[in-house]
Amino acid sequence: MSKAATPDHPIHDVLSSRWSPYGFSDRPVSEHDLCCLFEAARWAASSFNEQPWRFLVATKDDPKEFARMLSCLSDANQEWAKRAPVLILSVASTKFSRNDKPNGSAWHDVGLASASLTFEATARGLSAHWMAGIHRDKIRSEYELPGDFEPVTGIAIGYAEAIEDVPEPFRKRDSGTRTRRSIDEFVFIGDFGESAPFTKG
Amino acid sequence: MSKAATPDHPIHDVLSSRWSPYGFSDRPVSEHDLCCLFEAARWAASSFNEQPWRFLVATKDDPKEFARMLSCLSDANQEWAKRAPVLILSVASTKFSRNDKPNGSAWHDVGLASASLTFEATARGLSAHWMAGIHRDKIRSEYELPGDFEPVTGIAIGYAEAIEDVPEPFRKRDSGTRTRRSIDEFVFIGDFGESAPFTKG
Repeated sequence: MSKAATPDHPIHDVLSSRWSPYGFSDRPVSEHDLCCLFEAARWAASSFNEQPWRFLVATKDDPKEFARMLSCLSDANQEWAKRAPVLILSVASTKFSRNDKPNGSAWHDVGLASASLTFEATARGLSAHWMAGIHRDKIRSEYELPGDFEPVTGIAIGYAEAIEDVPEPFRKRDSGTRTRRSIDEFVFIGDFGESAPFTKG
Repeated sequence: MSKAATPDHPIHDVLSSRWSPYGFSDRPVSEHDLCCLFEAARWAASSFNEQPWRFLVATKDDPKEFARMLSCLSDANQEWAKRAPVLILSVASTKFSRNDKPNGSAWHDVGLASASLTFEATARGLSAHWMAGIHRDKIRSEYELPGDFEPVTGIAIGYAEAIEDVPEPFRKRDSGTRTRRSIDEFVFIGDFGESAPFTKG
């Protein structure tokens, strides 16, 4: 199953082939692949090279830890994420380690690292699906996060399921058309809201 | 000039070859390439497909707009970013358009889109350098950002300068060794802070 983007301008295959499936097959993800995914995250950029990203991981190989992490997702996300072989919770360190001051870029930089992780996943034939719907207070207590750390997102990782094997209502979602604003709607020159002329070329 | 990562585990070339130079050559970036960079950002994932990213752009072709954006960067960043042919300010829409509720994932999702933009840039032989040091209040007033939008980062885009042409003190920075925590320091299983066994393979 794949669902490539339909770009107006050419973009790299790894970017156009990335999408967020609801249906995951039961094929496990190798430990080698997991290492490479986190290695990709490792080399992301960050403000003052703080590397504010942390990742909690649970795989189906460890049913107890998997159930524990699954329970930290919203009910709606549990319904489909329970079929993914790997769950991840991204966590942000919200203070700079060098001076204990707030790091306003922490969430952004966790996004950069998570995106790198997902590029590497896509390049390996894997898929990732982010989840904003997570129980933040529960994660904080369940994993005893220190006060300077904040849960950011959940990420399900695995191999996308063949569409005919995806159960409803998720098959319908995975079959849906991918939509995005065109670039002239979010790229501006001069005034905020004024489309950059080159976007209309 | 290139400065590839030295990964412990294999990662995609586009990821390992990405780095953040201080030295940019005066070679301009084509409008076609700019379109492709923003097209890459366009297809990023976001919570509820909100696509909370906006980008203000200024190129050296328009000296007035370039100077205006440059003045929105911290003094330290202006020193080197003034040599880049393209400057970008990323902006987050902090409320969901469908219901006006706060979007807690906005900064994270701007990070996802910016990472895609940078991945595409790297694949095209370009480099990007994020800047957390920006004058947020000035950006808000200069570009008359509506209240629900927040400046996130600056991004300088261009071709990395040959190291012998990079002026000091930036040549020293561009020659420095790239360092990162190893993955066992940020990938945990079970308890927060407990290295995932597979990271020690």
